[in-house]
Amino acid sequence: RDSRSSSSDDEKEGNGGGIPIFILSDGTGWTAEHAVNAALGQFDYCLIDGVCPVNTHLFSGIDDVDKLMEIIKQAAKERAMVVYTLAEPSMAQSAKQACQHWGVASNDILGPLTEAIAGHLGVSPSGLSRWAPERQKTPLSEEYFRRIEAVEFTIKQDDGALPRNLDMADIVLTGVSRTGKTPLSIYLAQKGYKVANVPIVMNVDLPKTLFEVNPEKVFALTINPVVLQSIRRARAKTLGLNGELKSNYCDMAYVKEELEYARKIFAQNPVWPVIEVTAKAIEETAVIVLRLYHDRKNRCSMPRISKRY
Amino acid sequence: RDSRSSSSDDEKEGNGGGIPIFILSDGTGWTAEHAVNAALGQFDYCLIDGVCPVNTHLFSGIDDVDKLMEIIKQAAKERAMVVYTLAEPSMAQSAKQACQHWGVASNDILGPLTEAIAGHLGVSPSGLSRWAPERQKTPLSEEYFRRIEAVEFTIKQDDGALPRNLDMADIVLTGVSRTGKTPLSIYLAQKGYKVANVPIVMNVDLPKTLFEVNPEKVFALTINPVVLQSIRRARAKTLGLNGELKSNYCDMAYVKEELEYARKIFAQNPVWPVIEVTAKAIEETAVIVLRLYHDRKNRCSMPRISKRY
Ligand SMILES: Nc1ncnc2c1ncn2[C@@H]1O[C@H](COP(=O)(O)O)[C@@H](O)[C@H]1O
Ligand SMILES: Nc1ncnc2c1ncn2[C@@H]1O[C@H](COP(=O)(O)O)[C@@H](O)[C@H]1O
Ligand SMILES: [Mg+2]
Ligand SMILES: [Mg+2]
Repeated sequence: RDSRSSSSDDEKEGNGGGIPIFILSDGTGWTAEHAVNAALGQFDYCLIDGVCPVNTHLFSGIDDVDKLMEIIKQAAKERAMVVYTLAEPSMAQSAKQACQHWGVASNDILGPLTEAIAGHLGVSPSGLSRWAPERQKTPLSEEYFRRIEAVEFTIKQDDGALPRNLDMADIVLTGVSRTGKTPLSIYLAQKGYKVANVPIVMNVDLPKTLFEVNPEKVFALTINPVVLQSIRRARAKTLGLNGELKSNYCDMAYVKEELEYARKIFAQNPVWPVIEVTAKAIEETAVIVLRLYHDRKNRCSMPRISKRY
Repeated sequence: RDSRSSSSDDEKEGNGGGIPIFILSDGTGWTAEHAVNAALGQFDYCLIDGVCPVNTHLFSGIDDVDKLMEIIKQAAKERAMVVYTLAEPSMAQSAKQACQHWGVASNDILGPLTEAIAGHLGVSPSGLSRWAPERQKTPLSEEYFRRIEAVEFTIKQDDGALPRNLDMADIVLTGVSRTGKTPLSIYLAQKGYKVANVPIVMNVDLPKTLFEVNPEKVFALTINPVVLQSIRRARAKTLGLNGELKSNYCDMAYVKEELEYARKIFAQNPVWPVIEVTAKAIEETAVIVLRLYHDRKNRCSMPRISKRY
């Protein structure tokens, strides 16, 4: 839905005809961007055909009030709204007032949530931004390095490489080509899970280790054949006819046969949940996998994904 | 800072001593989780030493009011606060009222932002959640597949593999071992950029192509030697003494020499920005790279990262 666009001075600072939304942060801006992305999902119906195109503009590392004012004035000039996360209460206050003063619609993502959490925890927020020099720099945590290790592990296991390492994985994904194993693996890895994925190809033996690991950590992916065919066609186009793919890779008969071949393997391994990925975004499949993964580990009366901070 | 923890019935549904925060979504919950993560940054000072440990519990796919009520009652029982994103206004309203009724602190991440954007765009939100059957399913977009392609490209180029493909990358990262090239590449790839990374190893020739590609897309990473040594030591421990690493990999003299060797290469290529990654999280380095990348492409009067929806 979104796409990187150019912005240049001669196109009115790159609004390129879209309605501008300014995203401001004293940190990276990724949190506010994520929230704006989700909210824009509510306007899909009018974004899609370009009826109300939107341009977001991310300004990160806004650490003093002068920069802040300059950007809000620019927002007024470009008729943008402003969505912000500013840890320092006086900065957030200034943003709010300046937006009111310049007639700019605005929304504070961080303030209300931080206040609510402060009340809940019974302690005060530090008011220090991610990059504040005063912030007692917490050394990057063990968990942080664990996540990086998970990414590196996952890359090395991609596409069935190193089947001897399947037992070291937290999660093993399996399915035919173009069911999204690779991007799903990477998405999960960034959340700290070591993932291995094992492709199923008709009449190619699967690694023995796939049947030796704890079946509770194996997740099977399946997809509608018509959709799979179209994804494979797109891929064949991208890769070109350089012989990397089998000649029948996109044939409907072959696609169906291969899915059926996979289905039989799944049926022989009834502990593996079979997840239908058709029309699901990676992050959607990811939450389904993780819900099952945590349920199986914890057998909670009320299924949930729990984390400790 | 966070770590996956177990939750089980016998530990009071897994609060494990931490103050519980419930995260509720009719979608995946990742948006609300991201916001909670950022807000918890304001309480680092008391989270770190476990003075006020927090447990988050993610409940995704909450698509009917009965489930919603059940979870809010459970939140009351566990003395949790509730952070939610619910696209359907009646669901959001029910959540708010139920929380008030049961004395549960709550925060709506999506509602106020969606309203503000609706006012700005001059159109109404659909009120349909990510998984609503009524939602006219927008087929996964070109952009979506572009992002997946970027991830697959990036994995294949990792660690200097396929140097002949450097010209196909949007961004090329270079630096000595353990400057975070791999996780940074993957992070950027998930945002849709094709990334290649080229390791610098003392007295090992760099691929010629590194000096042939547009230098404006090359980013050099550097790090404090003391920190680098400690990261390398941790890595050596993880990898074990299996001979994958040079014997002097963690020696301070070698670490310093290698960084100096890299510095000289960077000096010979003055167009490459040199980014200091010491104590920076991946997402922080990522925004620095992308800011420079977009500035160079667009030469805007006011630096920004722009996207079109
Ligand atoms: N570890 C942290 N410590 C303090 N503030 C943080 C931390 N991480 C994020 N923030 C703040 O949370 C908001 C969102 O962060 P970001 O996603 O980097 O824009 C910003 O106001 C940051 O300053
Ligand atoms: N494409 C979309 N269309 C409609 N609603 C969405 C979309 N993506 C996310 N949302 C909503 O935005 C909120 C956050 O999404 P999530 O991060 O999946 O929890 C939820 O209320 C979702 O229902
Ligand atoms: Mg793959
Ligand atoms: Mg690497």
